[in-house]
Amino acid sequence: MRELPSDLQALSLRADAVLARVLPDAAAPPVELHQAMRYAVLGGGKRMRPLLVYAAGHAFDAPLDRLDPAAAAVEIIHAYSLVHDDLPAMDDDDLRRGRPTCHVVHGEAMAILAGDALQALAFEVLSQEAMPGVDAGGRLDMLRTLATACGSHGMAGGQAFDLAAVGQRLDPAALERMHVHKTGALIRASVRLGALAAGCRDPGPLQALDRYGHCVGLAFQIRDDILDVEGSTDQLGKTAGKDEANAKPTYPAILGMAASREQLAAMTADAIDAAATFGEAGRLLADLARFVAARES
Amino acid sequence: MRELPSDLQALSLRADAVLARVLPDAAAPPVELHQAMRYAVLGGGKRMRPLLVYAAGHAFDAPLDRLDPAAAAVEIIHAYSLVHDDLPAMDDDDLRRGRPTCHVVHGEAMAILAGDALQALAFEVLSQEAMPGVDAGGRLDMLRTLATACGSHGMAGGQAFDLAAVGQRLDPAALERMHVHKTGALIRASVRLGALAAGCRDPGPLQALDRYGHCVGLAFQIRDDILDVEGSTDQLGKTAGKDEANAKPTYPAILGMAASREQLAAMTADAIDAAATFGEAGRLLADLARFVAARES
Repeated sequence: MRELPSDLQALSLRADAVLARVLPDAAAPPVELHQAMRYAVLGGGKRMRPLLVYAAGHAFDAPLDRLDPAAAAVEIIHAYSLVHDDLPAMDDDDLRRGRPTCHVVHGEAMAILAGDALQALAFEVLSQEAMPGVDAGGRLDMLRTLATACGSHGMAGGQAFDLAAVGQRLDPAALERMHVHKTGALIRASVRLGALAAGCRDPGPLQALDRYGHCVGLAFQIRDDILDVEGSTDQLGKTAGKDEANAKPTYPAILGMAASREQLAAMTADAIDAAATFGEAGRLLADLARFVAARES
Repeated sequence: MRELPSDLQALSLRADAVLARVLPDAAAPPVELHQAMRYAVLGGGKRMRPLLVYAAGHAFDAPLDRLDPAAAAVEIIHAYSLVHDDLPAMDDDDLRRGRPTCHVVHGEAMAILAGDALQALAFEVLSQEAMPGVDAGGRLDMLRTLATACGSHGMAGGQAFDLAAVGQRLDPAALERMHVHKTGALIRASVRLGALAAGCRDPGPLQALDRYGHCVGLAFQIRDDILDVEGSTDQLGKTAGKDEANAKPTYPAILGMAASREQLAAMTADAIDAAATFGEAGRLLADLARFVAARES
């Protein structure tokens, strides 16, 4: 599945619309900050994390408006992390989603601030946007899930492992630890937020979703590493071949290309297996796992 | 009141202990990130914002353990904002609280990450640390208050106004707008968080506290600007005279020193007046306002 099926494409557009609505007005002061925030979030991206929210909510037949705030919040966090990752002091990247990165357009100071303000906005959205049918306890569970996924035991921690790993020869376990944090934590949180917004509190389904999120997260990263080797800058919308140039440890570099593909197939199969525990309601989750494994950008 | 009275001093030490407890263990991986986070928060600082939480909670006779998570959360946010403000791309400062700034010790990339992880940690602490007697709705109000104070309509917005103001000739209204956001938003939130943690939902007292927070916030900033002119680097623990060197708009530069002192006295009187609406229970709030106006560092 190289293209998103049409129902997931429609949900990706829905996420765009929700994001455009919850982001601060570009004309409201401080104007340059709000423009930088909107630039960082809007105009590009597959909206993978919102799709995970919607797909997980779909497994419980949740109405979409109940899922919108979580869908927006996880994408806002993702966008902030890209802005900060691309900074000169971090990965120093000038191309992202086919456009100049935020600091190239808005300057370094404004990019740091935009990332900071976006992180706060995600918690604002999750704490105050309408979620019909979600009680205060459910919202709190969601806020807790998001905060933990963002922090030093989640995404920010993964970025620190990444920094420490540059130029190092990692073993496969250390590589997995880095990705389970760096991209995995927010992906797992996205899936869980969809379930929590849908009102699910049963440990059984939540566990199946955690397994799904774990597998999809790793599959996503392995595919990313493969694309960095095989894709072109044009196709990816970001600089291709950058991992090798920066001596970053990747799956192809550590396991070899053949074993990386095998691992990707195994993770995808496991994710689809977890989705199958929801029967027909797990279809979007399974489709998304197939897309993650086969995507070309 | 140039020194903190002993009861406020004891609360400042209490905040230190809570912070040391809620921060990630320095030996837990990723070690360098956790060390940078602890370095940024521990070892220095008057803990003004935690004191505002405790003093506001005291106005409602709240037990201290109910206030601890909010006290820690606001200081963690403050610490993250200092780490990012001091970055080379921002104010480029190498001295803070009498020690080298976080990026000088841990490098720029790690300082960016430490700030990011600290912001997430504040929301983690507020969403999951025990607050005996606070229900889910109360906690949600607190999370909403903190998120709004941190975002583009609060602290991060103030920092953007500040960036835009360098080298500009602001009028007093624009100067006030900058500070109402940059330092004021988190100070007002601290006061409100203390009241919310104490269980206060009455608009009357909350309004009096908002007025108190507004006045103390501006008083704090005016005193800061005066100290930057009159204090020494040794005494302040940060580089003195930096505002003028950086062509930053300040109260003394825009109003003159005499009018700045008058404004400081008026704001302080107004804050003490708001605190008086709580009778004897407002004593800590009033003492804190007096200290803010007279502090030497």
